[in-house]
Amino acid sequence: MQIAMLVYDRFTALDVVGPYEILSRLPDARVDFVAEQAGPVRTDTGFLALTADKALDEVPRPDIVVVSGGPGTMDQLKNPALLDWLRAADATTTWTTSVCSGSLLLAAAGLLQGRRATSHWVALDLLKEFGAEPTGERVVTDGKYVTAAGVSSGIDMALTLSGRIAGDEHAQAVQLLTEYDPQPPYDAGSPQKAPAHLVEEFRAGSRFSLT
Amino acid sequence: MQIAMLVYDRFTALDVVGPYEILSRLPDARVDFVAEQAGPVRTDTGFLALTADKALDEVPRPDIVVVSGGPGTMDQLKNPALLDWLRAADATTTWTTSVCSGSLLLAAAGLLQGRRATSHWVALDLLKEFGAEPTGERVVTDGKYVTAAGVSSGIDMALTLSGRIAGDEHAQAVQLLTEYDPQPPYDAGSPQKAPAHLVEEFRAGSRFSLT
Repeated sequence: MQIAMLVYDRFTALDVVGPYEILSRLPDARVDFVAEQAGPVRTDTGFLALTADKALDEVPRPDIVVVSGGPGTMDQLKNPALLDWLRAADATTTWTTSVCSGSLLLAAAGLLQGRRATSHWVALDLLKEFGAEPTGERVVTDGKYVTAAGVSSGIDMALTLSGRIAGDEHAQAVQLLTEYDPQPPYDAGSPQKAPAHLVEEFRAGSRFSLT
Repeated sequence: MQIAMLVYDRFTALDVVGPYEILSRLPDARVDFVAEQAGPVRTDTGFLALTADKALDEVPRPDIVVVSGGPGTMDQLKNPALLDWLRAADATTTWTTSVCSGSLLLAAAGLLQGRRATSHWVALDLLKEFGAEPTGERVVTDGKYVTAAGVSSGIDMALTLSGRIAGDEHAQAVQLLTEYDPQPPYDAGSPQKAPAHLVEEFRAGSRFSLT
């Protein structure tokens, strides 16, 4: 089973490393990090590079695609090389997935037209503009399309998908392996739960730069 | 504030990428991935390489150290280059931290003698042999030493540390940024919660290879 993790300049590392850690434990999994060109790809902070071992044309028919999000998404929304690859790969995937703003790329490729999907909470309106039907859920499955909300939600998405593919017991074993028993010291992980002024600062772009 | 993320052959990617994603958002943070030699360092699955931009001797006095765990830990327990660096760096850090079996390296360097600490649940007995006092907690703080349990627990550790360093509001903002509102589809993330036969299979080494 070939799993393609799609990354690009200024992606968010945890978007893909979360799902990679989970999905790489699937029976017979082979994971390939893939980018427009093979080689090191730098993340949004500038502090880290992951190696894409393969260029797009080296991975034409993956079984599973996982599309990263990140501030760099916006620069890829009109990149024909990337969108063409997504459309071609999707033609034969069993699962096409995304984390965070990665769903905008699936939508820009025309793959989420009329489908229920999700994205980072700040990107849900834009996802709608691309023809998808955004929901506020953390993991959304519509047919073979599985989209996750922001950054860390890819872990939940991948565990869900692992259960679908290899059964509950396998997914539970991977949860135990990764000791995924979350105990966040705060309860501010969604716009519904975070202090309202923080949500406003994000929307106004004054807290962190999101693009 | 310089944050050194220590990696080595066959580390576990999420161990460090979780904390990196959180700690890199600290005010004035500069994160350096560091390894014995600079360059690509391959993870435990073999499917991914992260770039260590710096060699050990290029990062002599970080403010924060985060030590990765992973199956490769066992090969480093007697590596003088790495242990000497840990001891020297620790002399001037404000926080010395680890995720997963990374705490074994801190302990092997003599830094956790008599201190409360944690590790991946399968490594707790070994941590005791190195002179630490293992607890079953997910995040353990003893003085400036902050250790986290397995793999995904580094996210909780880093949020806890962010709150200590930059205040609750900053940590909450980063939790919102990373949409860390965990909703695991199963509740099997600790040996207390997982089906007993899975725990036994791990301890017997028949489910996943952990070394």
